[in-house]
Amino acid sequence: MAIHPTAIVSDKAIIGNQVDIGPFTTIHQNVTIGDNTTIEGYCDIGVSNHLSAGEQLHISNDSHIRSHSIFYEGSHFGKQLTTGHRVTVREKTLAGRNLQIGTLTDIQGHCSIGNYVRLHSNVHIGQHSKIGNYIWIYPYVVLTNDPHPPSDLAFGVTVEDFAVIATMTVILPKITIKTGCLIGAHSKLGIDTEANMLYSGNPAVKVCLASKITLQDGSNKAAYPWIKHFHRGYPKEVIKEWETLLNAELR
Amino acid sequence: MAIHPTAIVSDKAIIGNQVDIGPFTTIHQNVTIGDNTTIEGYCDIGVSNHLSAGEQLHISNDSHIRSHSIFYEGSHFGKQLTTGHRVTVREKTLAGRNLQIGTLTDIQGHCSIGNYVRLHSNVHIGQHSKIGNYIWIYPYVVLTNDPHPPSDLAFGVTVEDFAVIATMTVILPKITIKTGCLIGAHSKLGIDTEANMLYSGNPAVKVCLASKITLQDGSNKAAYPWIKHFHRGYPKEVIKEWETLLNAELR
Amino acid sequence: MAIHPTAIVSDKAIIGNQVDIGPFTTIHQNVTIGDNTTIEGYCDIGVSNHLSAGEQLHISNDSHIRSHSIFYEGSHFGKQLTTGHRVTVREKTLAGRNLQIGTLTDIQGHCSIGNYVRLHSNVHIGQHSKIGNYIWIYPYVVLTNDPHPPSDLAFGVTVEDFAVIATMTVILPKITIKTGCLIGAHSKLGIDTEANMLYSGNPAVKVCLASKITLQDGSNKAAYPWIKHFHRGYPKEVIKEWETLLNAELR
Repeated sequence: MAIHPTAIVSDKAIIGNQVDIGPFTTIHQNVTIGDNTTIEGYCDIGVSNHLSAGEQLHISNDSHIRSHSIFYEGSHFGKQLTTGHRVTVREKTLAGRNLQIGTLTDIQGHCSIGNYVRLHSNVHIGQHSKIGNYIWIYPYVVLTNDPHPPSDLAFGVTVEDFAVIATMTVILPKITIKTGCLIGAHSKLGIDTEANMLYSGNPAVKVCLASKITLQDGSNKAAYPWIKHFHRGYPKEVIKEWETLLNAELR
Repeated sequence: MAIHPTAIVSDKAIIGNQVDIGPFTTIHQNVTIGDNTTIEGYCDIGVSNHLSAGEQLHISNDSHIRSHSIFYEGSHFGKQLTTGHRVTVREKTLAGRNLQIGTLTDIQGHCSIGNYVRLHSNVHIGQHSKIGNYIWIYPYVVLTNDPHPPSDLAFGVTVEDFAVIATMTVILPKITIKTGCLIGAHSKLGIDTEANMLYSGNPAVKVCLASKITLQDGSNKAAYPWIKHFHRGYPKEVIKEWETLLNAELR
Repeated sequence: MAIHPTAIVSDKAIIGNQVDIGPFTTIHQNVTIGDNTTIEGYCDIGVSNHLSAGEQLHISNDSHIRSHSIFYEGSHFGKQLTTGHRVTVREKTLAGRNLQIGTLTDIQGHCSIGNYVRLHSNVHIGQHSKIGNYIWIYPYVVLTNDPHPPSDLAFGVTVEDFAVIATMTVILPKITIKTGCLIGAHSKLGIDTEANMLYSGNPAVKVCLASKITLQDGSNKAAYPWIKHFHRGYPKEVIKEWETLLNAELR
């Protein structure tokens, strides 16, 4: 364990084995950090507010939080959380394993996120979002929740497994993005979706099956479902699970 | 008063009673901070530059600036300023009372902001913007000012009282958003507006009276003017003022 | 030279003459900083990762990096680099002289940038972008690279000299923006371009010669090429070079 001498670590925080904490980082009291985890410098981890009611922030084993990041107390992350710089994560964010959160991404809390989700830079996840597994969300995407702002209502967006949302796209409140959908760049999606389709435009409309898009690697194969050809960074057991899924669909 | 021992506070700064200053925060010399105010950690408050000419930064009583925020000297804020994290506010920003500035929002300075304005996360306020009272601006909205970039001209946007600008919307230079207007998500507004209307789309067009939108709480009432049903966070005297306004309109 | 006593500077870093380093800033080992340069507080300079392979970060003479910025090792900047706050610049960014990077801008690395480029606030430069000289990119512009995300392919965007990209615009993978083009605000550009044209909309289409836009300063002259009337911040030798260029075109 290496805690930088300038770091401020509450003696009530529970710190695992082999944890590195960088310079000028603050770890507040209601924090549990798992083994083999790095928290870089300038982070503010376990910020309290009245909405988290003193609940613990759990960062599980094998995680890496990059510099200038802010996490509130009252959230839970599975193993292998990885973040870019300056991420902000509010209370009551419940996330599965191996979540990747890009630089500047802002998770407003009160939301659920499955396993192996990748949020790129500068994504905005509104409260009450429900995000499944193996999902990719690209820069400057906003998941909204207020049907007629400002109001007391919050109808979060649901994103199902394997969906992809391209850059600078807004998803309107209450919308469900079904399994395997691709939402094109710079779209405003305000209609519900069918699985495995491409939606694009402002307002977004159904374009075609995502599988009609061809890989631009010269193979001329279908680019979707992306799990057919893109495996980078996923462990073998995940790729095996995907193969079983794909084989079941072919039958 | 509790100034964290790692904070760097100029002895020329004027600090009120009951002020908390967090770890690793810098307070520069031309700064006045009112009573009962919290400045969290990692903030850089009162940054000087040649455009602010050594004028004071005034943070008034009962304010709360969250961590990693940056304020330049030469701006003035009324009471009860509240910010998220990592806000940036440049010189010559003149704001009324109870302004809320969300995480990552970037106010470019040389602008005026009225009372009880709410800027959500990641809003970009261009120079020479004029923002009235009781206004809501949502994430990734940009108020522009340059009619043919890059140029030496700056025609700021005007936003009148009670207007609402939904997420990911660009307002083009010189445009006035009239009282009570709603601008839909993911719009580009390049035309002047009539009061109390909904504008939406890219390019944005007049859709209907905002009051045609119905509350999605089951009541079937009009969702706008929003001050009819949404009172959260406003003090009693403000709500009373709104009631007088609404009654006058009915006559 | 003034290194703040709270700054952490590796004794392997090469620091020039007349260099100021602000409070709570970290300078890692593989860093070279030129003369007459200011690095403000809370910066993390020379962050290592496996992709930069221990290569130096070169910040050349007469540069100014504002607070809360993060630079990875393995990039090179010409003289007179100027940044806003909280910029993030990843490895293998090769930039010419007098680059300006606005607050919150995120350069993903593995890209090239010419001389006198201005990136405003909150610009996202994807990997494998090629950016020429005298280019202006406005807030919330995204240069993408993945033709069917997520994939292993990265087809960067090319931006040629004197081009201007207005706010909240997405440039799709592999697109070339030709010399002197203007891309309108809130556009999605997915087609290749001809020089000196205006493209705008979602999807963007060719509108007209950029020179058809008239200056709104009362002169009624053409607003483009912008180098005819806008010289602020450029040195005399650059303006002379532009005059030669403009004269050659007239012949």
